[in-house]
Amino acid sequence: MSSVSEPAAPSIRTAIPGPDTHRIKEDLDAVIDARTVQMVINYDQSFGNYITDVDGNTYLDVYAQIASIPVGYNNTTLIKAAQSSDIVSALVNRPAVGNFPSRQWLALLRDGLMRAAPPGCTQVFPAQSGSEANDLAFKAAFMAYRRQQRAGSPWTEYEQATAMKNQAPGSPDLAILSFRNSFHGRSFGSLSTTRSKPIHKVDIPAFKWPHATFPQLRYPLEDYVQENAREEERCLQEVENIISSWHCPVAGIIVEPIQSEGGDNHASPDFFQKLQAITKKHGITLIVDEVQTGFGATGKFWAHEHWELPSPADIVTFSKKAQTAGYFFSDGSLRPDKAYRQFNTWMGDAARIIICNAVIDEILSKKLVEKTAQVGAVLYDSLATLAAKYPNRMQSLRGKDKGTYIAFDTPDSSSLLKKMRELGINIGSCGVQTIRLRPMLIFEESHVAPLLAAFETAFSQLS
Amino acid sequence: MSSVSEPAAPSIRTAIPGPDTHRIKEDLDAVIDARTVQMVINYDQSFGNYITDVDGNTYLDVYAQIASIPVGYNNTTLIKAAQSSDIVSALVNRPAVGNFPSRQWLALLRDGLMRAAPPGCTQVFPAQSGSEANDLAFKAAFMAYRRQQRAGSPWTEYEQATAMKNQAPGSPDLAILSFRNSFHGRSFGSLSTTRSKPIHKVDIPAFKWPHATFPQLRYPLEDYVQENAREEERCLQEVENIISSWHCPVAGIIVEPIQSEGGDNHASPDFFQKLQAITKKHGITLIVDEVQTGFGATGKFWAHEHWELPSPADIVTFSKKAQTAGYFFSDGSLRPDKAYRQFNTWMGDAARIIICNAVIDEILSKKLVEKTAQVGAVLYDSLATLAAKYPNRMQSLRGKDKGTYIAFDTPDSSSLLKKMRELGINIGSCGVQTIRLRPMLIFEESHVAPLLAAFETAFSQLS
Repeated sequence: MSSVSEPAAPSIRTAIPGPDTHRIKEDLDAVIDARTVQMVINYDQSFGNYITDVDGNTYLDVYAQIASIPVGYNNTTLIKAAQSSDIVSALVNRPAVGNFPSRQWLALLRDGLMRAAPPGCTQVFPAQSGSEANDLAFKAAFMAYRRQQRAGSPWTEYEQATAMKNQAPGSPDLAILSFRNSFHGRSFGSLSTTRSKPIHKVDIPAFKWPHATFPQLRYPLEDYVQENAREEERCLQEVENIISSWHCPVAGIIVEPIQSEGGDNHASPDFFQKLQAITKKHGITLIVDEVQTGFGATGKFWAHEHWELPSPADIVTFSKKAQTAGYFFSDGSLRPDKAYRQFNTWMGDAARIIICNAVIDEILSKKLVEKTAQVGAVLYDSLATLAAKYPNRMQSLRGKDKGTYIAFDTPDSSSLLKKMRELGINIGSCGVQTIRLRPMLIFEESHVAPLLAAFETAFSQLS
Repeated sequence: MSSVSEPAAPSIRTAIPGPDTHRIKEDLDAVIDARTVQMVINYDQSFGNYITDVDGNTYLDVYAQIASIPVGYNNTTLIKAAQSSDIVSALVNRPAVGNFPSRQWLALLRDGLMRAAPPGCTQVFPAQSGSEANDLAFKAAFMAYRRQQRAGSPWTEYEQATAMKNQAPGSPDLAILSFRNSFHGRSFGSLSTTRSKPIHKVDIPAFKWPHATFPQLRYPLEDYVQENAREEERCLQEVENIISSWHCPVAGIIVEPIQSEGGDNHASPDFFQKLQAITKKHGITLIVDEVQTGFGATGKFWAHEHWELPSPADIVTFSKKAQTAGYFFSDGSLRPDKAYRQFNTWMGDAARIIICNAVIDEILSKKLVEKTAQVGAVLYDSLATLAAKYPNRMQSLRGKDKGTYIAFDTPDSSSLLKKMRELGINIGSCGVQTIRLRPMLIFEESHVAPLLAAFETAFSQLS
């Protein structure tokens, strides 16, 4: 933690990746699959929006650990939290928190984490990853659905016996509906709803759950108002059709406010309002997966706040920028009817919740959501100007009024990523041809210029 | 962290649970399901084998957070690790470790975590919980199985397209076989192999995977040598029958060295050797779930070391006492054939691996595995004497030569647990009528006397 302020600009000293990254990657590969390693990082020399690798190259980081660094490297508020006596205790005395919570647990949740609860959400269930959060949310949805069906009747002996054999009726055929191109994680439940790329799914058994088409909007939105409205209507009709015709009951729908891994695909507030109406009509659970969109990057604390729903989302899952994970929920019936149905040894990690609370402190005290909305508007306008200049390199620019959650399509995204890294910008892609911007919440107007300059250089060199 | 040494004995000041636990539990319940809370703990006043609740009651803790505290509350080696600059950096700069590992990552694994690798295991995949570790192990097993079947052929377009629809052949029907009464976790993959109690499984969709009978041995073992050998033979035959007749291929078998949540059920080394031979014969993966048994409590670092297998276990999953989670593996073909097939944003938590490495330091430098073997022998003999005196209260004492991993059956386990807690002993149950001892690795001969005295008092008061 020797750096105390951001560098003025990126600086690149070696070929990318550099020789030290190469060497360490090779050594790593003896004990862990290291094929995915892009750079080995000196985090002690990274600060704010800038990341420095072991070869001494410094990048402006607008990828931020797959959208998961909230308030910058070596943030001083987070460092203070990481040095607190409470976190030391949480690290060395890890409880089975459902049975033996610490005397600090109540404040960590009620006065800490719950400050981040989406509008109308009154309760939380902690987890350790986005995948786990989604799996837990599915379980809550299934239990709520069966509770409704059961209408107060106790479990039968037959249900209990069949559940132990993985058979209906105890272990029923129930489904979660997701959307084409969605990403909800890689565990067996969440992976059965993930529909973005074969690399995630080939060879892995999956539940026979349905997926509907997610709207494929055309850009610029103002030129395709009618077409896009029809597209959304078509997708909603597909959802209705699936619910009424699937081989088993659909107990819940999971949706990302912006499909992120799948290519930064947006839909309108109207679409989501109508989707919620469908879930209400059928008495099923709407799960909003805010693992990537939550915690401010869209210019609202939660991206689904852009929808102005008439009633709260049933379940909102979170991870990444929260630096912890779990789900918030709004409806008491999503708390299971018996204790120990939703339970595990650790149920999250209090140490990570302490870090999350420091993130929330930073966001609230520095008004980072509001600032991200402002900076995002400037960034979007700059990119729109660039897109007009390089129409072959930047298409379907999207994310207007969504903070810094901005993306565009480009014909050869991997060459652009490589070129950008050589120019000192660490940036990510998604879908098949999309560049996604995922800067931290401390990305400021002053960072727009170096980012834009690099894009311009890259485009001209690639052209 | 104000306590600096263990109290000499338990001390109970209030009714159990005490008024402060009641009050905090009620407040907690407004934001999180608190029905499972047994005591609210003052971890800052807990030390070594002793835990102190917010009402000032101090207990000898032989449950240890569902078997997950390895080396005592407020262990000074762990505190030092939790205060290190490396852990602060890992907490505040959490990387997407598969892409952008820290310069410390190599040493954390190669020189740290890998010291714990079971015999023959050369690689690791980190995770955050036992459930996640098992899910990941299943995925590795499925990919390895299909790789064998595919024999070098590339993925077809049809496989990729069907995988995206959760359909075969891309998303094939493949199974993991587990055993009756096993517990492997609660996520959708692991829960499909868990077979201990309906409370875990009712209402949750499950994969149609098979389970075989786990041997039900009779005690004392020396009186039932023939019967127990026949029982194990019968169970192995059932495994063979299932593999040859199940509706889809069985790609792996998961087994606990001692079925823990399911009632502390043991089997002989011969059973496990033959089980491994079956997996070898069929070219499928043997996954040893050491989430509860690993890290020393059985008097070996890994419980499956008691089996003396002719070749290494394919995959060994771990969590709990490791304070982190993941799986070790021995066979290069269990590393997927393509990058990014086994991947997620965080892939474990370097902060928790730093704590794990401090646990390993403690275990190795203080020879805690060897000590646990010795103390366990004394504890077992004392309990055997007690069992002879209270034959109606203690039956089927088991865990001889398995360190402190000892259990017995009792006619009314919940009354005994309650009574023991009133006597200052925090202890747990499992199965339907079993008391399980899960002391930490720092449980010493001096702790045997207060534990035994409490059992004796409880038995006489319950009789």
